[in-house]
Amino acid sequence: MNYKQCIIVRKDLKMGAGKASAQVSHASVEATLKSDKEKVKRWRSQGMKKIVLKVNSEEELFDYKKKAEQNKLKTALITDAGKTVFKKPTITCLAIGPDKEESIDKITKDLKML
Amino acid sequence: MNYKQCIIVRKDLKMGAGKASAQVSHASVEATLKSDKEKVKRWRSQGMKKIVLKVNSEEELFDYKKKAEQNKLKTALITDAGKTVFKKPTITCLAIGPDKEESIDKITKDLKML
Repeated sequence: MNYKQCIIVRKDLKMGAGKASAQVSHASVEATLKSDKEKVKRWRSQGMKKIVLKVNSEEELFDYKKKAEQNKLKTALITDAGKTVFKKPTITCLAIGPDKEESIDKITKDLKML
Repeated sequence: MNYKQCIIVRKDLKMGAGKASAQVSHASVEATLKSDKEKVKRWRSQGMKKIVLKVNSEEELFDYKKKAEQNKLKTALITDAGKTVFKKPTITCLAIGPDKEESIDKITKDLKML
């Protein structure tokens, strides 16, 4: 069984590489810490596969969060405090898993890579 | 006591936001999983402060790894397999900590943000 984690980023925010990297890492670490330890262990032993995908709005991000939760997948939604690049608190990305690749692909299959 | 994690990225590789985000997340998660659980707990409760910094070469990245280890800080060095953006295995970034902010700043104070 293959495990993966996916992180979905709001492309409409046009974050640079530094900002995007920090936000995606927040989501990735938080979802990892929330996940079942046995799943994390398997995922890590397989090389911690991660895929970074994109959506175009906050609404789309919430749609994917809802779908993931309906499928009993762990999620981490990240809100940037809005003290540097953004002028107000801003929802930037969502991590799903790590979990079984097929369970995650079922939800994210139509999304393109960032 | 404030905790932070820093991730140092090779700027010379000119990675786009998607590639950089995945690499930085690999480093961030791996260093988190290698770190002392009590430190991770404190860092998480403080909002998981992360700083993404840059260097211009693989040599510089190794210098910072050495300095961090000499100061007994946990590190995670990431090698991309070289199957997508890069044509061969490529060392992309280094995470240090989470650990006490002052211990990490001592090593990384001269680096600029990505």
